[in-house]
Amino acid sequence: MSGPPVPTPLQVIPVLGIPEITRGADLAGLVCDATELLEGDVVVVTQKVVSKAEGAVEAVDADDPLSHKVIVERESVRVLRRRGELVISETRHGFVCANAGVDLSNVERGTAALLPEDSDRSARRIRDGIRARAGVRVGVIVSDTFGRPWRRGVTDVAIGSAGVRVVVDLRGTRDAYGRELQVTEVAVVDEIAAAAELVMGKATGVPVAVVRGLDPAILTDDPASVRHDLVRPPADDLFR
Amino acid sequence: MSGPPVPTPLQVIPVLGIPEITRGADLAGLVCDATELLEGDVVVVTQKVVSKAEGAVEAVDADDPLSHKVIVERESVRVLRRRGELVISETRHGFVCANAGVDLSNVERGTAALLPEDSDRSARRIRDGIRARAGVRVGVIVSDTFGRPWRRGVTDVAIGSAGVRVVVDLRGTRDAYGRELQVTEVAVVDEIAAAAELVMGKATGVPVAVVRGLDPAILTDDPASVRHDLVRPPADDLFR
Repeated sequence: MSGPPVPTPLQVIPVLGIPEITRGADLAGLVCDATELLEGDVVVVTQKVVSKAEGAVEAVDADDPLSHKVIVERESVRVLRRRGELVISETRHGFVCANAGVDLSNVERGTAALLPEDSDRSARRIRDGIRARAGVRVGVIVSDTFGRPWRRGVTDVAIGSAGVRVVVDLRGTRDAYGRELQVTEVAVVDEIAAAAELVMGKATGVPVAVVRGLDPAILTDDPASVRHDLVRPPADDLFR
Repeated sequence: MSGPPVPTPLQVIPVLGIPEITRGADLAGLVCDATELLEGDVVVVTQKVVSKAEGAVEAVDADDPLSHKVIVERESVRVLRRRGELVISETRHGFVCANAGVDLSNVERGTAALLPEDSDRSARRIRDGIRARAGVRVGVIVSDTFGRPWRRGVTDVAIGSAGVRVVVDLRGTRDAYGRELQVTEVAVVDEIAAAAELVMGKATGVPVAVVRGLDPAILTDDPASVRHDLVRPPADDLFR
């Protein structure tokens, strides 16, 4: 039953001990307090705590389950579909998601969390803070939970990143048969966000995970950005 | 810099030493030869090797880069979008993907790989084979690489599964503030497939990965199925 040694497994580590986040919280410092980071780690932080730390939270009527809908309309630059109370729209960041990312879960009663103003900038701040505090160069991904067409269920995806190649381009590399690969670009930041969700759960209050052991080629000091590199330009998009 | 102990990290382990797969190959046996599996592991196997083992491969004209297009049309029950040579269509399994899942990469020159006839059944066979051979109850996911609207790049998703809850329903469970969660169903099989891709790469010839340390509640002996539980019924789908 024993096989050959298996190199470089990936680890996905939940970061416990992150306290309740309020406006102005130093997320980088809190992550460094809670866990020891290594060069080349990717730290995944959920949108909810980023929005709370940045004050991207608005008051809603706690007794009116639809009171956040005004915010949804305001945060939508274009509505793709409506069905009942559900709105699928494009946000000013270019994300297409339900309710423009406005969310009532895991926030205080009577409040709604909005998407961060610029989630790539949020990721950069956390990355810079970790480097200043712990002296390690990590990648940072801000993740959120999106639905998708054709398939039931939600998965976590990246809405911001820093220090990580967003889309890894395999164009021109060859498959195991020496043929040029047709599938060219892997959205590794979304795969990393999905992997992190598996240890966060949705209701367990673990807003940060560390992914350790990724291919070092995924990390970069270039200014890769989810908004610039992952949002599909509308002209290239067959479903917008 | 040291923090509290971190419990249950997830491990994503590439399985090396899987030989070239040909029709009739015993995938369960080959996986058991290559690595030691533990109760509760989830084994992710790429569609390409499943299709090869099942003989879901057809001859095409190696000198005509479009000769597989006839197969694409035949494998499509409905075309959603066309642009140039690209076809986004629905397969008879209910999957919406590019080129009906027909693929020329990582197969012998002059051949095209089709989707397995029933990828949930493929997963069940592998799971049963591993149980018979190694005496452990694992989950099995057959993964494939799909694009998606609105976001650039491809990610791996599940097209078949056995022994894994496909969509974990959090409906009625409560968030950290005691509010009933609005986001209800997490497509954990897709998140597991995405995590596995991070150690497989696209051109490295690693067609199998093991995900270890998942929440045991994700595993099930119920007949969960990607085709029944993950494909969104067309009537519920706003984008079909």
